[in-house]
This record gives sequence, structure tokens and C-alpha cells, in this order.
Amino acid sequence: MPDLLDPLGQEPAAQRLTDDAAWLAALVDVERALTRAVIGAGVAPAWMTEVTDALNASDLDADAIASEARGGGNPVIPLVKHLGRAAEGLRAGASDHIHVGATSQDILDTAAMVIAARVGASVSASLSELADRLATLADAHRRTPIVGRTLGQQASPTSFGLIAASWLSAVLVARDRVDAARASLPAQFGGAVGNLAVLTEVARARRTDAPAEAVVEAVRAEFARQLGLRAPDIDWHTDRMPVVTFAGALAEVLGVIGSFALDITVLARTEIGEVTERLGAGEGGSSAMPHKRNPVTAVLIVAAARRAPGMLATLHGSMLAEDQRPSGAWHAEWQTLRDLEHAALTATAAAASLADRLEVDTEQMRANLELTDGLVFSERVSTILAESLGKRAAFDLVETASREAFETHRPLRVVLSGSLSSSGADEQLRQRVWNAFEPDSALGHADSLITHVLDRYREEQRDNTDGEKQT
Amino acid sequence: MPDLLDPLGQEPAAQRLTDDAAWLAALVDVERALTRAVIGAGVAPAWMTEVTDALNASDLDADAIASEARGGGNPVIPLVKHLGRAAEGLRAGASDHIHVGATSQDILDTAAMVIAARVGASVSASLSELADRLATLADAHRRTPIVGRTLGQQASPTSFGLIAASWLSAVLVARDRVDAARASLPAQFGGAVGNLAVLTEVARARRTDAPAEAVVEAVRAEFARQLGLRAPDIDWHTDRMPVVTFAGALAEVLGVIGSFALDITVLARTEIGEVTERLGAGEGGSSAMPHKRNPVTAVLIVAAARRAPGMLATLHGSMLAEDQRPSGAWHAEWQTLRDLEHAALTATAAAASLADRLEVDTEQMRANLELTDGLVFSERVSTILAESLGKRAAFDLVETASREAFETHRPLRVVLSGSLSSSGADEQLRQRVWNAFEPDSALGHADSLITHVLDRYREEQRDNTDGEKQT
Amino acid sequence: MPDLLDPLGQEPAAQRLTDDAAWLAALVDVERALTRAVIGAGVAPAWMTEVTDALNASDLDADAIASEARGGGNPVIPLVKHLGRAAEGLRAGASDHIHVGATSQDILDTAAMVIAARVGASVSASLSELADRLATLADAHRRTPIVGRTLGQQASPTSFGLIAASWLSAVLVARDRVDAARASLPAQFGGAVGNLAVLTEVARARRTDAPAEAVVEAVRAEFARQLGLRAPDIDWHTDRMPVVTFAGALAEVLGVIGSFALDITVLARTEIGEVTERLGAGEGGSSAMPHKRNPVTAVLIVAAARRAPGMLATLHGSMLAEDQRPSGAWHAEWQTLRDLEHAALTATAAAASLADRLEVDTEQMRANLELTDGLVFSERVSTILAESLGKRAAFDLVETASREAFETHRPLRVVLSGSLSSSGADEQLRQRVWNAFEPDSALGHADSLITHVLDRYREEQRDNTDGEKQT
Amino acid sequence: MPDLLDPLGQEPAAQRLTDDAAWLAALVDVERALTRAVIGAGVAPAWMTEVTDALNASDLDADAIASEARGGGNPVIPLVKHLGRAAEGLRAGASDHIHVGATSQDILDTAAMVIAARVGASVSASLSELADRLATLADAHRRTPIVGRTLGQQASPTSFGLIAASWLSAVLVARDRVDAARASLPAQFGGAVGNLAVLTEVARARRTDAPAEAVVEAVRAEFARQLGLRAPDIDWHTDRMPVVTFAGALAEVLGVIGSFALDITVLARTEIGEVTERLGAGEGGSSAMPHKRNPVTAVLIVAAARRAPGMLATLHGSMLAEDQRPSGAWHAEWQTLRDLEHAALTATAAAASLADRLEVDTEQMRANLELTDGLVFSERVSTILAESLGKRAAFDLVETASREAFETHRPLRVVLSGSLSSSGADEQLRQRVWNAFEPDSALGHADSLITHVLDRYREEQRDNTDGEKQT
Repeated sequence: MPDLLDPLGQEPAAQRLTDDAAWLAALVDVERALTRAVIGAGVAPAWMTEVTDALNASDLDADAIASEARGGGNPVIPLVKHLGRAAEGLRAGASDHIHVGATSQDILDTAAMVIAARVGASVSASLSELADRLATLADAHRRTPIVGRTLGQQASPTSFGLIAASWLSAVLVARDRVDAARASLPAQFGGAVGNLAVLTEVARARRTDAPAEAVVEAVRAEFARQLGLRAPDIDWHTDRMPVVTFAGALAEVLGVIGSFALDITVLARTEIGEVTERLGAGEGGSSAMPHKRNPVTAVLIVAAARRAPGMLATLHGSMLAEDQRPSGAWHAEWQTLRDLEHAALTATAAAASLADRLEVDTEQMRANLELTDGLVFSERVSTILAESLGKRAAFDLVETASREAFETHRPLRVVLSGSLSSSGADEQLRQRVWNAFEPDSALGHADSLITHVLDRYREEQRDNTDGEKQT
Repeated sequence: MPDLLDPLGQEPAAQRLTDDAAWLAALVDVERALTRAVIGAGVAPAWMTEVTDALNASDLDADAIASEARGGGNPVIPLVKHLGRAAEGLRAGASDHIHVGATSQDILDTAAMVIAARVGASVSASLSELADRLATLADAHRRTPIVGRTLGQQASPTSFGLIAASWLSAVLVARDRVDAARASLPAQFGGAVGNLAVLTEVARARRTDAPAEAVVEAVRAEFARQLGLRAPDIDWHTDRMPVVTFAGALAEVLGVIGSFALDITVLARTEIGEVTERLGAGEGGSSAMPHKRNPVTAVLIVAAARRAPGMLATLHGSMLAEDQRPSGAWHAEWQTLRDLEHAALTATAAAASLADRLEVDTEQMRANLELTDGLVFSERVSTILAESLGKRAAFDLVETASREAFETHRPLRVVLSGSLSSSGADEQLRQRVWNAFEPDSALGHADSLITHVLDRYREEQRDNTDGEKQT
Repeated sequence: MPDLLDPLGQEPAAQRLTDDAAWLAALVDVERALTRAVIGAGVAPAWMTEVTDALNASDLDADAIASEARGGGNPVIPLVKHLGRAAEGLRAGASDHIHVGATSQDILDTAAMVIAARVGASVSASLSELADRLATLADAHRRTPIVGRTLGQQASPTSFGLIAASWLSAVLVARDRVDAARASLPAQFGGAVGNLAVLTEVARARRTDAPAEAVVEAVRAEFARQLGLRAPDIDWHTDRMPVVTFAGALAEVLGVIGSFALDITVLARTEIGEVTERLGAGEGGSSAMPHKRNPVTAVLIVAAARRAPGMLATLHGSMLAEDQRPSGAWHAEWQTLRDLEHAALTATAAAASLADRLEVDTEQMRANLELTDGLVFSERVSTILAESLGKRAAFDLVETASREAFETHRPLRVVLSGSLSSSGADEQLRQRVWNAFEPDSALGHADSLITHVLDRYREEQRDNTDGEKQT
Repeated sequence: MPDLLDPLGQEPAAQRLTDDAAWLAALVDVERALTRAVIGAGVAPAWMTEVTDALNASDLDADAIASEARGGGNPVIPLVKHLGRAAEGLRAGASDHIHVGATSQDILDTAAMVIAARVGASVSASLSELADRLATLADAHRRTPIVGRTLGQQASPTSFGLIAASWLSAVLVARDRVDAARASLPAQFGGAVGNLAVLTEVARARRTDAPAEAVVEAVRAEFARQLGLRAPDIDWHTDRMPVVTFAGALAEVLGVIGSFALDITVLARTEIGEVTERLGAGEGGSSAMPHKRNPVTAVLIVAAARRAPGMLATLHGSMLAEDQRPSGAWHAEWQTLRDLEHAALTATAAAASLADRLEVDTEQMRANLELTDGLVFSERVSTILAESLGKRAAFDLVETASREAFETHRPLRVVLSGSLSSSGADEQLRQRVWNAFEPDSALGHADSLITHVLDRYREEQRDNTDGEKQT
């Protein structure tokens, strides 16, 4: 399914997890899980196991189902018909035991959660890859000086490793958010109006040996268990928290990787040139300019991230769902969630690749630190001077000297030294101020902060590995 | 391209106007128009006409172009290569005369406008169909009483024709907005950074007989003319007004038809039952409830309309475009605009169909008017009484009587009559109040208002017909 | 601060927690906490404790600070000046020990978290009040039949207690989300570019007895502790997860209570009339219609909820923050978060009040169940018949009978009975079908589901009480 | 009304046009216009003119009205009471002739349009000021070379005047959009359910000499005329096009000036330094860094612009308005539109001021053009070479040379000259290529494009002046 307008969209995993085939398979998986659950609870005959095992999404006519979806307003109504027909083909009477007690929304919402679980796992894995790269970067550049920038202006020296640690910290939290969201994905099962009346009725008729309540509870639990989902206390037909929680986590992920990619587009600016994206042959070019080396991956990640807030807003709007199933709010979720998932899948995979291909130019970082002839050390020298002169006087002295340095194109170091001489400052202070203009000594608490983040990274990595071992 | 999650999306026109094939064709059309414009200005050889005529989108490998789009971040870079190769196949050297002076954004943005023109025309036509149905409805029900509802409560009697006229009025304005937006769609042509430097250079080299400025102007004008677009004063690479203007009009259309459809979902409520959607066999059903007659078309239109604000917000966000081509803002527009166009196309077609299938139950409208035992006439009788008692006293009298009627389950008419008797009101006034409880006499200014709207409808219809004749 | 356009906004707590005075106080609290932390770490003199204790937001000129905010683009720059002046008035040299090592964003972001903690607590408390009312309602109406509605149509019988339990369940989850979000609110402290370089320098100068790293760590921890906030591993100047996490929870709350209020507007519709809002004297009226009893609180809650998605989208957009402090993204958060907090505070308080004033009309619920002459039992009887006839045949039989009943205005019960007779169904089956049309026996699994939710409610209530005891 | 969190919000005009006092005055203006219209149509007594003239918003208790708004859900219900009381104080019976035939929404919506007209005029005036500055800039810098940047990378030379002309062009279109939107603002007048039933009834009672239809039409027309608004065919209680049209124009304005301001934040970056914002004493500073010169105005404009899409989305969401007055959609508009208006007012005034204080560093522009040692001329030389070598060969040659130049840190000019020598290119071609590296000759069609935009600017200026003369 190539898509001319989505250059990142070619990512095969993204397609495979969210396209029509994935949805049809998920819908069928859900129907099969329900049938198995009713068999398990003794509400459907044991021979249905064989029929259920033989039902396959790939045998269904996806096009016909999509076309017929219009009549009832959702694809489950025709799906149940097609599935029933297939079941009857396997054994007469089998269609009676499909979709027992369910309403269309039960199946569609549960399939959405099945897909969300897969999408969440893939996004989380891409974030882990991204985290690995950023951890390496943060560690390697603990003491690499770079100028910190605020409001677009050079501000004060910092360490590039700390910037990478900031990216890493954000990615770790985003991964936690996705992992928490996918751990709590619930199955949906309430029947037409949420009270499971049909299943209760069927249980009464077919299981005279047990209280219907217990049978229904068993089906609810087994249905969710089959699919690896949580069995909620009650249906969520009009309580769309599961959708916005998961979508919120994806939007947060897109925000975090978008911010990282945005930083790359800034650092890759021709005039800055500190970090660029390594490009393969034929990448990053222009149809007009032979010299162009565009940070295309970063740009496309930013583009994906810019789309997330609007999609999330649509999904939040659908929380305003009336009655026992609303007239439009629910239906507005389907495509929106799918688009958001697709964007998150492609952009996180791209972000991992981007982090893998970063070229860091530490010489250019040093060169940029010298661009202002020392102005970026103003805060630092002001702090040093404040110990002798008091804060206000120090700030004013440095502010005046900064203006003079800027206007006369002289190094701040030289101007300040002159001011201190003429004001009779002692030699030791002048020397300390002079020495303050060394970036390597100006990294502050960066090293400790980086260690904090790397410790957290390693701890979570260990937890994940343990978690995987246990599974 | 069936889509399981978009029951309205099967609309063939919607697919045909916005899918990858449509985009590839539009991109090729734009490149061809540019080539013809440079031929016309004497900047490319005359023999290129034949080559250009022979180039065809359907001969290109769309999948390959989509895949290769990732490297440069947009599909135009590979398109130019593929197109050049095809041209060379027709005549050696032909590729030199393709994409002359253009940058990728020129081609992609212009193609977006070509598609917008087609989408706008189709949406406008669907709105005209919808207007025709609503005009008939407004005229037919000029004097059909229905209760007006505010904040969900029955308020006062009105005419159903007036409600239909309100829908019609909104649709007419929405159509005007789309028509205005599509009339002003501009071509995009600025070259890499907006100053058409390459074309200027080429003109200088190849047209020594004319000032380059004149040649460039000729190409700009002809390029736009070929495509039926406006030639703007200057490029709009980072002035995204054309996009948000068009998208805004589509979002407005979706808001207008969404509001109409929302009204149908309310009027079709089982307890109201005044207007319903006529359903074909197998439509509006449920997978669980045999009696269900869901207003599915109305619901799906509402769903489409709920998605528009978020999409529009994304496009507005892309107005914040820096430099001469931004790092992500532009790229975030592509899919978003396409999705919005697709939603507008499917939902307007569905709205025209919905209006065609409305079943109006005038008896139920009358029955509902009687539901409150006259309370909905409170404003009316209060107005009549105010002429004798003064406004405040009349309001208080009717408010008290309303409360009594409500609590004692007696008709307001009877309660009020009693109050007026005991307060010694004259017989004539009591009679006027008694008669005021006739819905047919309570329609106010509805007839004139309907006429206003129908006059406007007919005038615009005439203008459209004249416009079409002239074209 | 009355506000003509925000009828719910008069809520005094909402104003008190979010207005300019609240913000100024929070900003001063944060500066004081920082000073105390540096005193504690031996980086400021002990006598500053007295000065700090004496500093008071109410002594500052709020208007002047607001006016001067324009020059630097945020209110902290003038605040530090005013605060410094006040400190100097108390003791010369005191201003040197204010704002030590901090940047404006540290103070503003931390103040935002201080306010968020208060807002979150208030919202959570209102949700608890709301939960109490809904729990009572759910328990009281376990067996109150009401028709369940889907896509605006009467669907199947259910229990009103189950609907209330659905509202309750959503409210409990929303409260969990807010509680989780407020439990993790972090302090912000990184200095100009995140590396705490100034504080490190000051620590080196003033605490020659200890490694600067340890001193800085002590300040970081104590600063957060003073304010009851979490001390994060690293600054979050451009990692806006804390903002979107909290804002997301508030938007989720607004979605949940908006959905509840929306249900009330539907159930209060004149033609439905099952649940209404008890109104005080002069409430719910109209300027024109004496009989009007509008569910104003519900309507205003819905209005507040409709504003949340757009605000959340703006805040998510600000995640795309470049450099060490971005040029606009951060600044766009301030008013937006405040507006969202204000909306959440007023609307949750209103929702608790609304739930307290619900009037439930169980007779009207029964009357509405009879409105369709039995059609809403179609799913139920279809299920019963399926046990004898098979699912497909039963569904078709009931669908046909439903159509006949609808068209001939006869009870489905009667029509079905006739069909069964003529098709030779046995007497026992006919009797069971006849009896199925009793709403009281049609509530399905509602009772168990209600119990699930009430159990969770009580458990969380117990946890909260325990939690409060421990605090 | 200082606002700590809105540094631009101190703009006095913005407050004056949108605060509670402005709203109360507008509401009273609207009620007075209605009374005058009914007097004019002979439906209220002539002596009411004097009473109406004497009514004054400043005499009303705004706080009480705001507080009482909660009961009815909007401020008009208490306003009518307070106004009636004031009128009775002037002459007994006067309150009967206030709010005749109107519903709350008529008054509130019309007042919103009155305020929109004032806001629109002020925004348009600020845009005109901004346009004046940009026109001067565009003209002055027609031939000032600057590097054009795409995707953050230096692309090709262009003229700074052309960039200013692009800003100007966008501003002119934005002003057109606002002017068109404010020219079509409609009065709202439909009575409770849109059919003006009460006014019709009153006309029948009080004007037995004329058909009620004519009297009602006269009132409608005069009401709108009094307020300088358009009299629409029909009410727009649930057709919110007037709101979204106006809001859309404001959002477009914010997008356009936000894009301009965003460009300034980029051009003011320390490493670019081509255009900066002239700062007054104490402006642009930092609480921590003495040397900081932040482009604060630009940053705050960007922040305002980032909030517009979310607000617009909320207003578009309110188009989905059901019944004759919806349960929440309408109410969600009020604060949102006001916030958007306030943002547009403050940001456009700030943009005019920003444009007035731009410092253009043409030397730095030239220096940046040299930063890549000629790579930014690659497109240009490629075009020149293509005339001799063909397009493909030229592109490849320049691409290879660009890579070599980049990797060996040699000027592209020199590398290319070498390549051409070794490939035996003739001397004339080599000379032409060598000369191509002069920015002054590389401005392409910029001059003509600037002239186009300035012509449009002057034409519109003339039209505006003529328009003002006529008024």
C-alpha cells in the first residue's frame, strides 16, 4: 500500500499492524476468542472448537465486508454474516454459536484494543532502540562543550551529553507512558446496552446447572484472557477513557520524538552545523539544488508530530458520548485512532534510525561557543564576581561590559579585565574571571545529571530484560 | 480501495478524486503545464510539445515513486527522475525541459490546488443537490407545526418548513464559501527560494531577444492558465493562506451538514420520531436487535463532521512556517488536507442522499406539540396577556399557571382560564387566550422567513445556471 | 472577578486557585522554597531564614509586575526585582540570596506545578463528591428498568442503576488519573541551560568543605521537598511531559463529566423526561418562555467539556520545544493550562452539584419502555426463540414480526404470539415468549456489574480514608 | 486588568474592546437598538425613546448580573431584569418595551457581532500599520542579498526585500480576510425558536393598521441598521457560520503574523544574526544572563499564534448545534471567541511594533552567504552549465563538485573551475561560471515580484483611503 503523500509511511511494520488486513484479522480473532469463551463456559457445544479453529480472516471477502459496512454503519454487521456463512459451510448450525451475546461495538472496540496492544509493543520497542542510541550519545559526550540556547539566543555553555540525556530522559518517560497504557487495555463486552442480557438469557437456557451470573462472569473473564486484555468491571461503550489513554500516550510519544527531531533540524542548520543526519546515497537531496543535504528524517518526524494534537483533540471530543452508544462520537474515533497509530509507528521507527545516523561535530560546537567573543560566559563570570561584589553590582558590571563588548566587537574577557583593573579589583579575582572563559570548566552539574538519567535507563533496561525472561 | 473503518468512504467519487492515482495524475498534469508554459515562452523547444503530450501518469511506476519519496522527503524528487526517464525514452534531451525553474514544492502545492479545484466542484455539486431537497422540504412544510426545542426542552411552536429553511440557508452559505475558495485557488511557482532565479537565468540564456522579466512573467501566467488556477503576485511557499482558506471552507461545509445530520439524529429519536431516514433493505440494522432502525447515514455524517475541527487545527498550525520552506509544517499538511477532502466528499454526498430519504411524520409533530398539555404555548399566551396586564404581570401569571399545570397534570389552557376567571378578566381576553393554544395560528413570521431563503436559493440557482451557460 | 461570559466561573474556589493572586503567591512560595533550600545547604547565610519568612506575596505590587512582564517576556524577571527590593528593605545584602542559580522558567514551571497540585486536589475532591452521589444512585436503582438507547434509538431494557454505575465507573477512573498525575508533579530546577552551572559555581565558592555535586544535589532535593513536589532526575525545560500529563488528566475528567452531563441533557428532554435537574427558584428559566425548565447546570458542564480538546491540543503542540528553552512553545502553555484548570474546577464542582439534584422519574422510564409496544424486547425474545428455532430463524422471525408490529401499530407480543401459533410452536414456548415482555426480568447481568463497580468504589474510598489518616 | 501570565495582554485597547465592561456595554447597546427599532415600527410608544436614551451600561450592577447568570445559564436573563428595573425607575411601564420579541441568544449573539466589528476594525488597523512598515522594508531591500533557507539549510541567494514582500503579501491577504469577515457580520433576531412569533403577535395587537409581516420586517431591518450590522434572511441560532467565519479570519491573521514573527526568531538566532528586534532599556533581558538580548516581542507573538488553532477547533466544533438552540455548543463559544479576539488584538499590535523595531544587518547577510564557500550558488551554476552540458550532466557535475568542496573545505568556485579545466570546458564558460558566484547578480525575478506586491499594497491603501473618505 504505497502512499505518495506519506514518505515515512512505507515502513512495512506500520502498514502490517494497522491496515485493513490487520483489522479484519483482529476482528476475526475477537469473534473466535468470544466463541472459545462461550465454549469454555459450556454455553456453546464443544464441537465448535474445531469450527472456530478453522475460521480464518484470509478466507473472508474483505472488499464485500467493507462495502456492506455502509448499511449498518459499521463493519461488524456484515462480518458476522460472512463469518456465519463460513461457519455453516464447516458445520450446519455453527453460526448460532458465533457472536453470542455481543453487540457490534463489543467486537470493534476489542479489536481496536488488540491492535493497540500490538502497536504499543512496536512503538515501545522502537523507543527502546532510540533510548539505546541516546544513552550511548549521552555517555560519550558527558564533557563535550556546546552552547546552550534559549529563545533562539546563545545563552551559556553546557555539555552535549546533557542535551542527549534530556532527550533520553524524555524518551524513557514516553516509553513508560506507552507501556502503562498498553498494560491496561481492556476487552469490551456488554452486549447491546451493556447489561449482557442476551448472554445471561443464553446461560439460563443452556446451563441449568449453574447460576447464570457465574457463567456470564466466566465468559467475560475468559474472553479477555484469550486476547491478553484486561477484563474490566463494566463495559466502556460510552466511557472512552481506554481510547484517550492510549491515544494520549501515543501523542506524548510523538511530542517527545518530535521535540528531539526538531532539535536536530535546528542543530543541523547551516549556520549552526553541530549535529547532522548522516544521509545515504540519494537522500536529503533537492530537485533543484545539487548541494542540498536536508535532514529529511528529522523533518518528516516533526511533520508527523505536528499532526498528533489535532487527532488527539478529535478523540477527546468523542468522550462526549451520549446514551448507551452515541450517534457519531464513537464512529469518529476509528480512522482517527488508526491514523495516529500509523503516525506513531512510522515516526518512532524513523527516530531510532535518525539517532543511529547522527553525526556530531564537536569542533563546530567549540567554534560556536567562541562566536560571541565570550558573551555566553556572562552568567558564569557574573556569578564569580558576585561572591566579591554582591549579586546586583556583579550583574550590572557584566551587563555593561557585555554591551561594550558587543558594540566594540571586543572579547568580553578583555573588556571585563579592563573594567576590573580600573575599578581596582585584586589580581586573584581578575585571574579567576579570566580563567572562567574556559568552556570545559563551565559544565556545572552536567555530569551528575547525566549519571542520574543513565542509571534510570540501565535500571529500566534490566527490568525489561527481567520482564521478558519471565514472560 | 475498500476501507473497513470508513463506511462512507466507499463513495467512488471520493476515492477517485483523492487517491494516489489522482495525485500522481495531478502531479504529472502540473509538470506538463509547466513544460507547455516554457515552450510557449520560447524557453523550451517546440518539439517538446509532442513529448509532453505523450507523457502519462499511468505509464509511471507509482509504487517506485512512493518508495523513493522517503529519501528526499517528498514524491516530486523521484517523480522528476521517472518523468525525465520517460521523456528521454521519447526523445533524447527531452528531460532537460521538464521541471524547468521549479522546486518540488511548486509542483506539489500546485497539484494540491488542482485537486482542491476538483474536490471543491464535487462538494459544491453535492451541496446543490442537498439544497434542492431542502428547498422542496421548506416549501412543502411552510405551515406544518412542530415544536421548537431549545436546550433540549420543548420551547414554542414553529413551522417545520422554517427548520428546513434554516438548514437550506446554512447550506447555501456553505456552498458560497466553497465556491469562493475554489475560485481563488492559486498556482505555486517560485523556484527554490521564491525568486525564480533559475527560470530567470534560463530565460536570459535562451531568449536573448526579450527581457528576462517579461519571459518569466509569461511563463508564470501561462502555467496558471493551463491549470485553470490563479497566478498569484508572489509565491506562497510559507504563506499557507490558500490551504487554510480552502480547508476552512471544507470544515465549514462539514459543520453545516453535520449540524443538519445531528438534527436528524435527534428528530429520529424513538421518543420524538418526527423525521426519520428511509432505509433500504438491510440498512440501519443491528447485529443484535431485530427491530433496530438506526439513522446510519445521519450518524456517519455527524462522525465525519466531528473530525473536521482537529484536521483544520493541524492545517492552521502549519501556517507557522519558517524560512523559505519550513522543516515539517509543510509536510504535515499533505495527508491532513487529503483526509479532510475525503471526509467532505463522502459526507456531502451522503447528506444529499439523506435529505432525499427523509420521512416526515407530521402527525407525530402534532402529537409532540400536545405532550406538555399546552406549556409550549406559554410564551404566546404571555405575550397576549401582556397587552392587557403588562409584561411582568403576564409573565408571572403564566409562570405560576405553568407550574400549577405541570404539577397537577392539567392543561395549561384550563388552568389559565381558571386563573383569569378568578381574577375577573373579561370574556374576550379569556377567549383570545383559549384560542391561542392552536398551533396553526402560532407560526409567527415563519412564512416570510421561508420565502426569504427560497428567494435566495432560486436566485443562486439562476446565477449558477447562467454561470454554467457562459462557461 | 465576575465574568459575564462564564456562568459557572463564579465558583469561588476556582477563582481562588487560579487567579493572578494565586499565581503571585505561588511564584513567591517557590522563590522562598529555593532560598530555604540554599540556606539549608549552607550556600546562603542562616539569617536569610528570617528575611524569607517575612517576604509576602501580598506586599508586592502585582500590577507593576504584570506590566513589567512584557519587557522580558515573563513575570519572573520583574518579580525577582521586586522581591529583591523587598528583601533589601528587610536586610541589606539579602537580595543576593534570592533566585540563586535559578532561571525564570525554573520558577514559573515550579509555580505551575504548585498550582496544579492544588487544582488537582480540588478536582479530585469534587470527583469524590460526585462519586458518592452516583454510588447512591447506582445502588438505589439496581432494579429500576429503563430503556437502553443506541444511536438515538430505543434498543433494549436495562437498569438505571447500571447507567449510574457506568457514570460512577468512569468518574472513579478519572479520579485515579488526576490523582496519579498530581502525585508525580515535579519541581523544575536547571538554571539557565539545565546544567545548574551557577549553583555549582556558588557551591564551590561558599562550601569549600564539601564537593559541589553533593551540595547541588541537596539543594535540588530540598527545593522539591519544601513544595511537596517530586525532584526529577533532570530539568524538563523542553520535555513538557509533566504539563501534558496533568492537562491530559484534566481533559479526561472534563470528558467524563461532560459525558455524564450530556446524558442528563438527553434524559431531561421533554419527550423523554426520565431524569431532570432539580432547579432552585429563578433557575433554568428563559428570558422569553415562562414554562421553561432548562437543565442549565448540565448544559454548562457540557460547554466546559467541549472546550477541553482544543486546549489540550495547544498544550500538546507545545511539546515541540526546541533548544534549551523554546521561542514561543513554552509561552503558549501558560494561559492555556490556566484556562483548562479553571474549566475543570468549575465543571467538576458543578457536576457534583448536578448529581446531588437529579430527579429520577421511574414511572416515566416505565412509560417509555412501553412506547414501542414491545419492540425493545426484540433482542430478548429473539434470544429465547433461538434456543428452539436456531439463531438465524429466530432473528428473521422477530425482525418480520417487528416490522409488522411497527406498521400495524400492534404490540409485538401479540404479533409474535400469532406468528408462533400459526407456525405451530408449542404452548410452553409461546408462554415463555409472552412472559419475556416484562422489563423486570430483562435486566440481564446488571446487578452483578453494579456490584463490581460499587465494590471498587468502596475499596477506593477506604484507601482514600486510610491515605488521609496516614497523612 | 493586569494579567501575570499574558505579557502582551497589557495592551489597553485589547482589554477595552473585550473585557466585561465592553460586553455589558455591547449587550445594553443591543437592547437599546431593539427598543429603538420597535419604537420606529410603532410597536412601542414614542416616549420610550427618552427612557432608552437614558439607559446606561455603567449604571448597571455588573457583578450582580454576572453572578445571577448561573441560574439561567447566560447573562442576558439577569440583564433584562436589571435593565427593566432601571427603565421602570425612569418611567412606570417602560420595562414592557424592552427585549420585545427577543430571546437571550438574540441579544448575546448580536452583542458578539458588535464586539467582533470593533475587534475586526482594530485588528485591521494594526495590520495596516504592519503593512506600512513591511512595504518600506521590501522597497528598501529590493537588492539586498540574503541566503534563502529551506528545511533549515542554506539553499540559494535571494533578496531580503523579497522576503519582506512575502510577509507583506500575506499580511495584505489576512487584512482582506478580516475586512471581508467584518463587513458581513449579521445581527441575530429570531425570538425563542426563530420564527419571531412574539413580535408578530405584538405587531398584530399594536399595529392594527398594517400587516404584521411588514411591521416585523421593519423591526428586523432597523435593529440591524442601528448597530451597523447586516440583517440576515433568517436567524442563525444554530447556523454558526458567522462565528467561524470571523474566528477563521482571526486565526488566519494570527497564522500570518505568527509566521512573520517566527521568521524573526530564526533570523535573530545568534549564529544567523541577520535581523533582530531593537530592544528598549530593560527589554529582552534574562533573570540570569547579563548579555541576553531575547527577541521577546517575536516570541510572544509566536506564542499567541500557537494558541489559535485549538481555539478555532473549539469554535468549529460548536457548528454541530442541534435543535433550535443547542445544549452546550453555543455556550462553549463565548469565552473561546473572546480569548481568540484578545490574542489577535494583542498580537497584531505587537507585530506592528515589532516591524517598526527591526534592525537589519545587511553585512551579516553577506557574511552568511559566504559561509558555505559558494555551495549556495550550486543551483545557479548548475543552471548555467546546463545550457552547455545538458541538465543531468550539469547537475551531476555540480553535485560531485559540491561534495568535494564540502569535504575538502575548498570554495566550490575553485573546485568547479578545476573540474571544468580538466574536462576541457572553454574559457568563456569557465568565466561565466566564475562570475556566477556574485550574489548581486543572483536575485532572479525578485525585483518584479516585489513590485507586484507593492503595487497591490498601494492600490489597497488608495482604496482604503477612498473608503474612509466616503464614510
